[in-house]
Amino acid sequence: MGILSKPIKSLDDLFVHTLGDVYYAEQQITKALPKMIGKVTDPQLKQAFERHLDETRNQIKRAEQVFKMHGKEAKAVKCPAIDGIIDEAEEIMSDASDHEVLDAAALASAQAVEHYEITRYGTLVAWAQQLGRNDCAEVLRQTLEEEKATDLKLTAIAEARVNRVAV
Amino acid sequence: MGILSKPIKSLDDLFVHTLGDVYYAEQQITKALPKMIGKVTDPQLKQAFERHLDETRNQIKRAEQVFKMHGKEAKAVKCPAIDGIIDEAEEIMSDASDHEVLDAAALASAQAVEHYEITRYGTLVAWAQQLGRNDCAEVLRQTLEEEKATDLKLTAIAEARVNRVAV
Repeated sequence: MGILSKPIKSLDDLFVHTLGDVYYAEQQITKALPKMIGKVTDPQLKQAFERHLDETRNQIKRAEQVFKMHGKEAKAVKCPAIDGIIDEAEEIMSDASDHEVLDAAALASAQAVEHYEITRYGTLVAWAQQLGRNDCAEVLRQTLEEEKATDLKLTAIAEARVNRVAV
Repeated sequence: MGILSKPIKSLDDLFVHTLGDVYYAEQQITKALPKMIGKVTDPQLKQAFERHLDETRNQIKRAEQVFKMHGKEAKAVKCPAIDGIIDEAEEIMSDASDHEVLDAAALASAQAVEHYEITRYGTLVAWAQQLGRNDCAEVLRQTLEEEKATDLKLTAIAEARVNRVAV
């Protein structure tokens, strides 16, 4: 949000605002992921990030599609939450001096990003339904399911790392 | 993190750093929740926030217990992620001019906070196990389960709102 943004008078305004928020978030993620891909060493993690970068580019198109279906111009809304999550990821990765530690930090950061997206898309699906826009809800649900699947893949990688050390 | 923080050389450093992160996050949440309780009108939501405020105070004590078990001084680490999530919640709530819209925004913001905590505690449990500290993992898992239960309660309230409008 911020002082230049439109006042939020209705659920429709809130929906469009939050769609702009995830649209911004996805754009920031496409900038952050290549840096993370360049830094991590675990091949499974690198591959998961590469796959998610492709998905994210497609999710940006899907957000644009929902803006269009809803008769609004696609407009990113700068929001502090995703900026904070990404700043924290970059800080912690730059402070990690060992590649195993860096991979663990990158994995945790990616899961924080996924959870942010899961909560926002979950909210958007609910609000689209509440507004009677099941068509928009359906498109947003595709992204929500992709984000959940990515989180599950990252959790499986994290669990494999725990077991590898525990053996 | 930040320029004054300790360099992260090992998974143990990363664990202690992230424990400091959630310790800071819980403290910020105890400051933010009373403001949200004062603003929302939905009685179910107000009650859920009040219950979670009590839980959060207990989670702070649990984080202190884990620091102690791990032989470290309890120290909050200022991190941009929770600050960003809370700033965004406060901004969007101050821009909402209708009480129904404000409640919807508050609910969505609380779910974003919960998801942030779920991902961080999930990571901390995994790292505690990886470090062979199942005792710490057990205490952290109690908080993780509480956060998941709170998120489910908030989701149920969100779904009831969707159905109420859809009827």
